[in-house]
Amino acid sequence: MNYTIGIDFGTLSGRAVLVSVEDGSEIASAVCDYPHGVIDRILPSSGEELPPAWALQDPADYLLVLGRVIREVREKAGVRAEDVIGLSVDFTCCTVMPIYSDGTPLCFTEKWKNEKNAWCKLWKHHAAQGYADRLNDIYLESGLDWLSHLGGKASGEWMLPKIWETLDTARGVFRDCDLFIEAGDWIVMQLTGKLTRNYMMASFKSFYRPEQGYPSDSFLEKCDPELRGLYSGKLSGRVLPCGSLAGRVTPEAAERFGLAPGTAVSPAIPDAHVGAFSLGISEPGDMFGIMGTSNCYFLLSDERKTVPGICGCVENGLIPGFFGYEAGLCCVGDHFSWAANCLTPPEYAAEAGEKGLSPLKLLISKAAEKRPGETGLVALDWWNGNRNILGNGLLSGMIVGMTLRTAPEDIMRALIEATAFGTRVIFDNFREHGLEIGRFTAAGGIARKDPFTVQLYADVLKLPIAVTSTSQAPALGCAIQAAASAGAGAGGYSSIAEAIERMHAKPDKVYYPDEEASKVYDLLYEEYKKLHDLFGRGGSDVMFRLRSIAAGEV
Amino acid sequence: MNYTIGIDFGTLSGRAVLVSVEDGSEIASAVCDYPHGVIDRILPSSGEELPPAWALQDPADYLLVLGRVIREVREKAGVRAEDVIGLSVDFTCCTVMPIYSDGTPLCFTEKWKNEKNAWCKLWKHHAAQGYADRLNDIYLESGLDWLSHLGGKASGEWMLPKIWETLDTARGVFRDCDLFIEAGDWIVMQLTGKLTRNYMMASFKSFYRPEQGYPSDSFLEKCDPELRGLYSGKLSGRVLPCGSLAGRVTPEAAERFGLAPGTAVSPAIPDAHVGAFSLGISEPGDMFGIMGTSNCYFLLSDERKTVPGICGCVENGLIPGFFGYEAGLCCVGDHFSWAANCLTPPEYAAEAGEKGLSPLKLLISKAAEKRPGETGLVALDWWNGNRNILGNGLLSGMIVGMTLRTAPEDIMRALIEATAFGTRVIFDNFREHGLEIGRFTAAGGIARKDPFTVQLYADVLKLPIAVTSTSQAPALGCAIQAAASAGAGAGGYSSIAEAIERMHAKPDKVYYPDEEASKVYDLLYEEYKKLHDLFGRGGSDVMFRLRSIAAGEV
Repeated sequence: MNYTIGIDFGTLSGRAVLVSVEDGSEIASAVCDYPHGVIDRILPSSGEELPPAWALQDPADYLLVLGRVIREVREKAGVRAEDVIGLSVDFTCCTVMPIYSDGTPLCFTEKWKNEKNAWCKLWKHHAAQGYADRLNDIYLESGLDWLSHLGGKASGEWMLPKIWETLDTARGVFRDCDLFIEAGDWIVMQLTGKLTRNYMMASFKSFYRPEQGYPSDSFLEKCDPELRGLYSGKLSGRVLPCGSLAGRVTPEAAERFGLAPGTAVSPAIPDAHVGAFSLGISEPGDMFGIMGTSNCYFLLSDERKTVPGICGCVENGLIPGFFGYEAGLCCVGDHFSWAANCLTPPEYAAEAGEKGLSPLKLLISKAAEKRPGETGLVALDWWNGNRNILGNGLLSGMIVGMTLRTAPEDIMRALIEATAFGTRVIFDNFREHGLEIGRFTAAGGIARKDPFTVQLYADVLKLPIAVTSTSQAPALGCAIQAAASAGAGAGGYSSIAEAIERMHAKPDKVYYPDEEASKVYDLLYEEYKKLHDLFGRGGSDVMFRLRSIAAGEV
Repeated sequence: MNYTIGIDFGTLSGRAVLVSVEDGSEIASAVCDYPHGVIDRILPSSGEELPPAWALQDPADYLLVLGRVIREVREKAGVRAEDVIGLSVDFTCCTVMPIYSDGTPLCFTEKWKNEKNAWCKLWKHHAAQGYADRLNDIYLESGLDWLSHLGGKASGEWMLPKIWETLDTARGVFRDCDLFIEAGDWIVMQLTGKLTRNYMMASFKSFYRPEQGYPSDSFLEKCDPELRGLYSGKLSGRVLPCGSLAGRVTPEAAERFGLAPGTAVSPAIPDAHVGAFSLGISEPGDMFGIMGTSNCYFLLSDERKTVPGICGCVENGLIPGFFGYEAGLCCVGDHFSWAANCLTPPEYAAEAGEKGLSPLKLLISKAAEKRPGETGLVALDWWNGNRNILGNGLLSGMIVGMTLRTAPEDIMRALIEATAFGTRVIFDNFREHGLEIGRFTAAGGIARKDPFTVQLYADVLKLPIAVTSTSQAPALGCAIQAAASAGAGAGGYSSIAEAIERMHAKPDKVYYPDEEASKVYDLLYEEYKKLHDLFGRGGSDVMFRLRSIAAGEV
C-alpha cells in the first residue's frame, strides 16, 4: 500500500492526514496547536506591547507542529516512513518572514529577536494597510495593469505592503535578511533544503505572472528606492505549479520530522485553495467555500473576466485549463469566537455547562430560535477588515438596531447574517462581472459542524450548499497533491486531475434555501448593502478616523 | 419640630425621605421596588406577549409602595403622623392611565384587566411613536404654534399620542374611561380625593399653556373625530402650580397610608424637575442634571428663546419669574445595565465576585483604565430611542469600530461616552439658540456613585460638574415643595423660593474637565455628531426599516 501525508497549517494549529493513495481514504489524522497561537498583543521575546492591527507568529511553532503531527499520524496508522510516498503542506498566506539564505529566520537570532518586524507576519497582520494604500495610488498613477487580475487593488495582507512596512519601520531587518519567504515555502525549504516558491501564493500575494514575471524595478523605486531589486534578490527563487515536485526530503529533515529520506515534497499551496482538490471541484461554475476562521471562496471558470475587488484570478493555477477566481471574508469563525467571548453572561455560561455545549454553540442555538429579521439588527462583518470586495483591512465592525430588548443571541445572529451578506456581495460581484456560479460545495469547521449557519447561508445566497463528507478538506487536498508530486512511477498519479478524480471526498449533505426566509433576507441584505457602500466606499470615513484617534495619530 | 415627607416615584421603585422643615436635613429614608417593575414582555393578567416598544406598569404597585415607604420613614424617624405637616410626590411622566371618575383604574376591573391599553403606560412606552409622527404632520400642516415652546415637535412619550394609540387600538377602553390621568396626579387624587393636574406635567406633556389653555377641538378632530372634547372631558381638571396646595389627606387615605387626616398635599411634580429644588437652582444659567435610568437636564433662564428639539420651556413652571428649559436622554443607567447584562463573560463575573463589585462596576473600572479614544469605538446611545434633540423613540442603538481586539469594557466605555456626547448635543443646541449655560449641578445615582462617568461628562462637556451632597435629590425636592404647600402658618414656608433657600442640599464635590482628555473627546464628538445627523436626520433610515422588518411589517 502507498500513502501520502497532507498537512494543513491553519491560523491556530496544524492538522495532518495520512491517506491511502488508492482512494483517498483517511487512515489517521492528528492536530497540534501552535504553542504561541497568534501573537497580537505582546511580543514574547521582549514583552513589548504590539500596536493595533499587528498579528505575528513564531516559526519555531511550525517546526514543532510539523514533527509532531507527522509522527502521530504514522504511529496511529502503523505506517512505515518508507510507505509514505509524498508529503505536501498548505499554509495561510500571505504569511511572511525574513530569513537568511540558510533558512534561518531573523527572529531566531539574538540580534533580531526583539524586533517585531523580524517575526513572521501572519496573513491577518493588517498594520501594513497604509503601504497598500500608497502602493495602489502609485499603481494607478503609473497606468499599469498587473493588478487587474487581482481585483485591481493590492491588499495590506499581501507580500509587498508587508515588506515595505518592514523596510520603512525596521530598515536594519530589511537590509540584513537575504530573503523574504512565505511560511509555506519556508516549510518546503526546511524539508527539501531548496528554495521553491509556489505558483499560487506567488500569483495571488506577490504579483507574479507566468509570462511577465514580477512588477518592474521602476515601479518599486517609486515606492522606495531601496525596494529596487527586491524581486530578483530577496524575493528570488524558482516558481513551481501545483502537483509538481518541489524536492525530496533531506536526510537531516527525515531524521528531524520522522520521514524517509527522498520522500517527494510538493510545492506549498494556499490553505484557501487546496480544499478544491478534496471537494472534487472540476467543472466551470463549480465553486467551493472553506468556512472557518475566515471564509475563502474559489470559483472555477473557463472564461477570463476582469472582476474588481476580488483576491485574484489565476490561469492554470489550481487545475490545468481553467481560470481560478478567489475571494473571501477575512473574519468568520474568529468573529463568532469574539462574540462568544464577549457576549456570554454567567447565566448563559451556566446553561451551556448544563447542556454540555460550548458558549458559542449555546449562543448559536439561541440565535436559531429567532425568525429571520426578528432581531432588528444588521451588522457589518468587518471586525478584521474587509478583504473582498472592498479590499481594506482598516475597515472595522458595525452593528445597528440595538434596543434594551436586544439579547446576546440577537447580536450573535446578526454577526452570522453579516458574514452571509458579505458572501452574497462577493457572489453578486462575480455574477455582475459575467461569471456564473453553478454548484457550491462547502468544507471547513463551520460547514461541517454548524448546520444553522450553513442553512442561513443557503437562505441568504439563495443557492443549495453541498457540504463535503471530509472534516479534513485542506489536509486531504494536500495529500492529493502529494500523490501527483510523487508521480505514477512511485505509486502516485501522473496528473493532479487524475489524483483529484481518484482521491476526492463526496458531499454528504445538501442544504436547500427556504423561500420564506430568503424573502426576509433579501430585505435585510438591502440594508446591509447600503451600509456596506456607505462605510466602505467613502460615504462615511468614520472607521478610518476612529483608528487614527485610537492610535493617537490626530 | 415640623417635618415633611417627599416621595420620588421612579421607573423601578419609590423612595421616600422624611426631612426637617427647618434645614432640610434628612431624618429617615426608605425605598421599595414596584413588585411588577416595568412590564415590557408579558401582560401579567393574561400572559399576552407585549409587542416591541411597549412598557406598562401596574398602578397597584404605586399604592403598595406609597403605604410602605410612608410608614417606614415615620417608624425609622420616630415621628408622629401629626408632626408631618406636608407631603409631596414626584413621578415619572408622561406615565398615563385611563380611570373612572372615582379614581379606579380600568386595569383594576375584570372587564378591562386583559386589555393592555387599560394599563398604565410608562413614560418609556414608545409604541405610540407613529401617532406622534401623524400629530406632528397635522400640526405642521395646520400652521399652529403651540409646540414651539416644546421643541417644535411632539414626542411619542407624551399624553396625546399615548391616548390616541388607545383610541385607535382599543376604542372600548377610550370610550369607557372617564379620565386619562398622569400617574403622579392619580396618587394625589388617591390622597386628597380630588382631581388636580399639576402645571409642570400638563405643560410639558399635555400641551397646556396658562393663558391659551389646551389645543383646540378643531385640531383634535383632524387627528380623529372622536378626540373632540378630549381636553374638556377626559383630560379636564384644574391645573395647579408648584408649591400650591392640591388638597389635604382624607381620613380614608390617612388610615390606608399612615398619615394624619388633613395633612397638606402638593401637586405632583415631574421626577425630572423636582431635583432643582434640592440642588438650590436659582440663578439664570443654572443647570441641573439628574443622571440615572435616564438623564434629565433643566436650565433656568430669564429669557424666552425658541429652542428646537428640546422637551420644552415653561414660564413660571418651576420657580416664579424664570423660564425653565427641559431636555434629556431617555436611556442612560438602563443602557449601562443592558451592557452589564450582555457583556459580562464568566471570567469577568468571577473577577467581580472576588473584588466584591457588581458586574457593571467591574466593567466601568476596566473601561476607566483606557485612554480617551483608545477603544476605537463610537456609539449612538439610542437603545431606547432619542428624546432630544431628535425626538424619535424609534431610533435605535449603533456601535462602530469593533475589531477582534475589542473587549467588553471597550463597548461599555463607548456607551458611556455616547451618553456624554448625547448630552453635549443638547447643551450645544441650547447655546446655538441663545441660552447660556453657567453652573452645572448634578444629582442622581450615576452622579453620586460613578466618579468615572461624571469626570468623563466634565471632559466631554468641557464644564465643571458639581455633584450634590444628597443621594435623594428628587425626594428632598418633594419635601421642599411640601413645606411650601403646607405654608408658613402651619410651620412651613410662604413660598417655594424661601423653602428652597432654607432646605436645599449643598454640593460636596466638583469635577473639573481635563484639557488633554477634552481634546480627544472633541475629535470623537465630531464623529458622534456626524453619525447622529446621518442616522437621526434622514441620511440613513435603516433604524426605522429594521424595526419594520422585525415587526414583520414589510
